[in-house]
Amino acid sequence: MKQEEIQRLTDEYWMQRALEMAQRGAHIGEIPVGAVIIRARTEPQELTQSAELITEAHNEKELQIDPTAHAEVLAIQRATKYLQNWRLTGCTLYVTLEPCIMCLGAIIAARFDRVVIGARDLKAGAIISTYKFLETTHFNHYPKIQMDILQEPCSEILKNFFQNLRQNKKT
Amino acid sequence: MKQEEIQRLTDEYWMQRALEMAQRGAHIGEIPVGAVIIRARTEPQELTQSAELITEAHNEKELQIDPTAHAEVLAIQRATKYLQNWRLTGCTLYVTLEPCIMCLGAIIAARFDRVVIGARDLKAGAIISTYKFLETTHFNHYPKIQMDILQEPCSEILKNFFQNLRQNKKT
Repeated sequence: MKQEEIQRLTDEYWMQRALEMAQRGAHIGEIPVGAVIIRARTEPQELTQSAELITEAHNEKELQIDPTAHAEVLAIQRATKYLQNWRLTGCTLYVTLEPCIMCLGAIIAARFDRVVIGARDLKAGAIISTYKFLETTHFNHYPKIQMDILQEPCSEILKNFFQNLRQNKKT
Repeated sequence: MKQEEIQRLTDEYWMQRALEMAQRGAHIGEIPVGAVIIRARTEPQELTQSAELITEAHNEKELQIDPTAHAEVLAIQRATKYLQNWRLTGCTLYVTLEPCIMCLGAIIAARFDRVVIGARDLKAGAIISTYKFLETTHFNHYPKIQMDILQEPCSEILKNFFQNLRQNKKT
């Protein structure tokens, strides 16, 4: 298998896991966005085993009564505490929805190697949709960015959530 | 006294308090940035009593080993938990340094009425210095912004901190 295909399969594997986190969030009434942080192993073995899971999180804004409790921020806070290092060099963040500017700022501050994104957020996405991070040059760190991994299911879970919310309000 | 003068004196009073928080941060080796959140009283009395202090914080990035532990984020997290509401409507944030994009995102998410800023951050400030928040129109909330309150001491405390750091490295 080509290196690119392996990368794509690996990205889909971890994004699926981020999607499961999003689903858990939906179950407790949180807007379903999920995030997973992995760290590359120095000696990669086969596919999904070539990295270790560091932490995972879903949106907890309502649960924690905290507007900063987006999946990405929570995952970063847990990962840096777990690794006892505020630099997440060597790590990749998987997130089911394009980060907002707050989460983008947190991602830059945490020095990720790579960020893999599911659905685009046309209203608040800060990578490509509203703020154009990919066109800037002034930040002190630039992780590699991969857009559109499992874009459809990552978008679908949000659509379903808001559709259910509207239906429940009607009844 | 004119309304504008009262507002300026009030802003300087609370910014002075944010500066004291920044100083406390410096004492434990944190980059000295301080933040204070106040809530307006419905029936204003005299000057500094016309608002109540909700919370205050300084940078705790090193202490908490957390790249998101900027003074503004910590103050927002504490205030929303204390008020049991993730919307800080009616509140003003005082911060000694122009917020970065992460903190700007947190500020927008928390729905502040007003943000009062001390020194400008030419390298990472997202209000006016690098990202130009004041020129955007796409966000779902725009707090009133007041720049340059106690700009000199807010800038001075940072200069001194980094000067000491360099001197200590030399010896």
